Amino acid sequence: MFQKILIANRGEIAVRIIRACRDLGIISVAVYSEADREALHAQIADEAICIGPANPRDSYLNMQNLISAALASGAQAIHPGFGFLSENAEFAQMAIENGIAFIGPKPQTIHLLGDKSEAKRTAIAAGVPVALGSDGAVADYAEAEAWAKKIGYPVMLKASAGGGGKGIRVAKTPEELKSAYDTASSEAQANFGDGRLYIERYVENPRHIEVQILGDTQGNVVHLFERECSIQRRHQKLLEEAPSFFLDPETREKMCCAARDLAKKVGYINAGTVEFLVDNDKNFFFCEMNTRIQVEHPVTEQVTGVDLVCEQIRIAAGEPLSFTQEDLHLRGHAIECRINAEDPARDFAPCPGRINAMHLPGGPGVRMDTAAYQGYMIPPFYDSMIGKLIVSGEDRTQAIARMRRALAETLFDGVTTSTDFHLHLLASDAFISGNFHTNSIANGDFDR
Amino acid sequence: MFQKILIANRGEIAVRIIRACRDLGIISVAVYSEADREALHAQIADEAICIGPANPRDSYLNMQNLISAALASGAQAIHPGFGFLSENAEFAQMAIENGIAFIGPKPQTIHLLGDKSEAKRTAIAAGVPVALGSDGAVADYAEAEAWAKKIGYPVMLKASAGGGGKGIRVAKTPEELKSAYDTASSEAQANFGDGRLYIERYVENPRHIEVQILGDTQGNVVHLFERECSIQRRHQKLLEEAPSFFLDPETREKMCCAARDLAKKVGYINAGTVEFLVDNDKNFFFCEMNTRIQVEHPVTEQVTGVDLVCEQIRIAAGEPLSFTQEDLHLRGHAIECRINAEDPARDFAPCPGRINAMHLPGGPGVRMDTAAYQGYMIPPFYDSMIGKLIVSGEDRTQAIARMRRALAETLFDGVTTSTDFHLHLLASDAFISGNFHTNSIANGDFDR
Repeated sequence: MFQKILIANRGEIAVRIIRACRDLGIISVAVYSEADREALHAQIADEAICIGPANPRDSYLNMQNLISAALASGAQAIHPGFGFLSENAEFAQMAIENGIAFIGPKPQTIHLLGDKSEAKRTAIAAGVPVALGSDGAVADYAEAEAWAKKIGYPVMLKASAGGGGKGIRVAKTPEELKSAYDTASSEAQANFGDGRLYIERYVENPRHIEVQILGDTQGNVVHLFERECSIQRRHQKLLEEAPSFFLDPETREKMCCAARDLAKKVGYINAGTVEFLVDNDKNFFFCEMNTRIQVEHPVTEQVTGVDLVCEQIRIAAGEPLSFTQEDLHLRGHAIECRINAEDPARDFAPCPGRINAMHLPGGPGVRMDTAAYQGYMIPPFYDSMIGKLIVSGEDRTQAIARMRRALAETLFDGVTTSTDFHLHLLASDAFISGNFHTNSIANGDFDR
Repeated sequence: MFQKILIANRGEIAVRIIRACRDLGIISVAVYSEADREALHAQIADEAICIGPANPRDSYLNMQNLISAALASGAQAIHPGFGFLSENAEFAQMAIENGIAFIGPKPQTIHLLGDKSEAKRTAIAAGVPVALGSDGAVADYAEAEAWAKKIGYPVMLKASAGGGGKGIRVAKTPEELKSAYDTASSEAQANFGDGRLYIERYVENPRHIEVQILGDTQGNVVHLFERECSIQRRHQKLLEEAPSFFLDPETREKMCCAARDLAKKVGYINAGTVEFLVDNDKNFFFCEMNTRIQVEHPVTEQVTGVDLVCEQIRIAAGEPLSFTQEDLHLRGHAIECRINAEDPARDFAPCPGRINAMHLPGGPGVRMDTAAYQGYMIPPFYDSMIGKLIVSGEDRTQAIARMRRALAETLFDGVTTSTDFHLHLLASDAFISGNFHTNSIANGDFDR
């Protein structure tokens, strides 16, 4: 097992990884930008190294500085967390070349699954259902037009190199196609340096349901059931649940096995997530595979009892999984609310600032993962998520009641957060009945 | 179901009960003494009523004021928590006579089990093993002496009306008997207004293991397995676990069934705990039955998934248990550390004061039940417990690692607490090996 791990991230996920290191008896090395000198992850890690100025490009995305910090501290492994360099094959490769283990899949796996049209082709080869469409990037607009005609409207254009909801447009009619193509392509070019797009049949009012995967270096691959992540605004998840209220046991089994088949097909190592869109008739279509730990991983931990971050570390150290698929069972229900320092009333605009007073909820079924503390100044340079409130209960009804209770106890005085928005959502008929999809927030379904 | 419940208690347990009310959609009414105006329970309850001055006798033990507050607020039930009036049959009776449900057993059950020698006789009648001794109170010292001769030394003298570790003395030799008798009797007289004692064979270096019981008004009684509570100083528990590391499955089954048999014998309704002493050969002896929720109830909640306080409320409202014995299974391991504002280095002397800064632990497996907050002034009039840190894991090893991690994150700046003592304990060979008993702290077993 590793003696020391460098955590190439910040905030809540860095604290989460420090906790996993503690539980395994591993020394943790935090990195921080100049804007994060007072950040909790830098304070509670066993060691902490400044890696550059506030701008992420100069610090948390600065590969050379991160590798230097790892080498200087004597860390034997790097955990990339999520976001930043977590899905950057070049960074993983650089770590390996410097004799440092990368806690994630092999660089070539990251590369393969990072190319969305390549990933889709791989899914088809693994027998995983995909939405009808071009099986790779289209060469130009003319090819997109021909595909759209063939598969029928509405269609979705997606960046080949995409992720995080960027470079995606829907065209409902032939008239909308040109403008959708142009904006998606230029957004893809701007965000990923690669304007290539692929096109597929648009699943209307889909649910976003994803399957957690773990694979070890011995070739064992298991799924840890699904997460329901349909509560989104602009392709950004706000609330996640496990299991999905919408799936029947048969569809669950089919989806989870499809996800595992894909992971096996690519020789997947470490934690990963296979994302699906599910239509109203419970047909599911492969979307993409994320080659890192997800923000919403705690709901899976709560319903399976598996500590996913500890498992990531064990796998990277070469340990075989200590459980088989048959050992894994769903127990109860878990919900996560992302607590963001942002104003839902102003279209979720970020609200950085100082947390004057803080009160965290407690009691049965409540877990809080946060890097915030009383007096903490939220810097304006990074993601607006300041914490994740996770509850679990014996069933969905109990979990909802506990989440409402816990949200009502939560106080982050000094900044506007999403807690009231979540309370509103959790009280709505649409949420309680489970009758929602990825467009429900935009449609105002939770306001009725 | 009740619409409104009055909570006849303060601090952490009052907050715990408010949370249960929230989860069930019930309006909570807090009561507070003049010293508790700023207490969290008084702040977060839906309603709050001042019931008298700081001195508990004038407020939290003032039956008439509590009943008046319940009537004035329109509460249909009273939850007594633990301590204070929770095992007072007269108070339960007074509530019932005023048309208010008492969330606990019938007054006659409280009365029967509150008399320790009467309880012991009942246990014998139910076939539950008891330590050899007088089956009721002895008339005088001469009778105690005769019994001691018959059962053999060492012997233990216990207050018939006792509880909370008061009025208990051990005599290892005939020479020690007179002084033990006199001090136990006068302590019993001072604490309970009743100097009567009973005598039994003293179990040397025993473990304290207790079984959680729930019984409904339909006559269904289940056990929820055991808690290991041997980490004590002066008969006060400091750390509890579920399940007990010491019990084998066969002894567990025998103890749990014995506890349930006793509860059935007395027609037990609501939550209760049957306490046993267990010797090194795993012989167990009935100690007493507590007719209320216990401080350490969360460890049972964590390993069974049952919300005990919600169940108490449902039972008091006449609902049948929604599960049977066969539905209950142990899953994983849980540990609770009592966070007391006291100084272990000064023989656990209470240290009331102001919490200048507070930081609560989080992450996987961590539950915090506390009524403390940043800026809170701990009053000197009540119990020194300011919170309970509960962790759960898949097994004892993971639970210990998580507890050490969580304790290290916990900060109550401004007051001395037991957190360092717990960290020390959790790192000791005696604790990790599970090789300890109720005298281990006094013996310094955790210092080696």
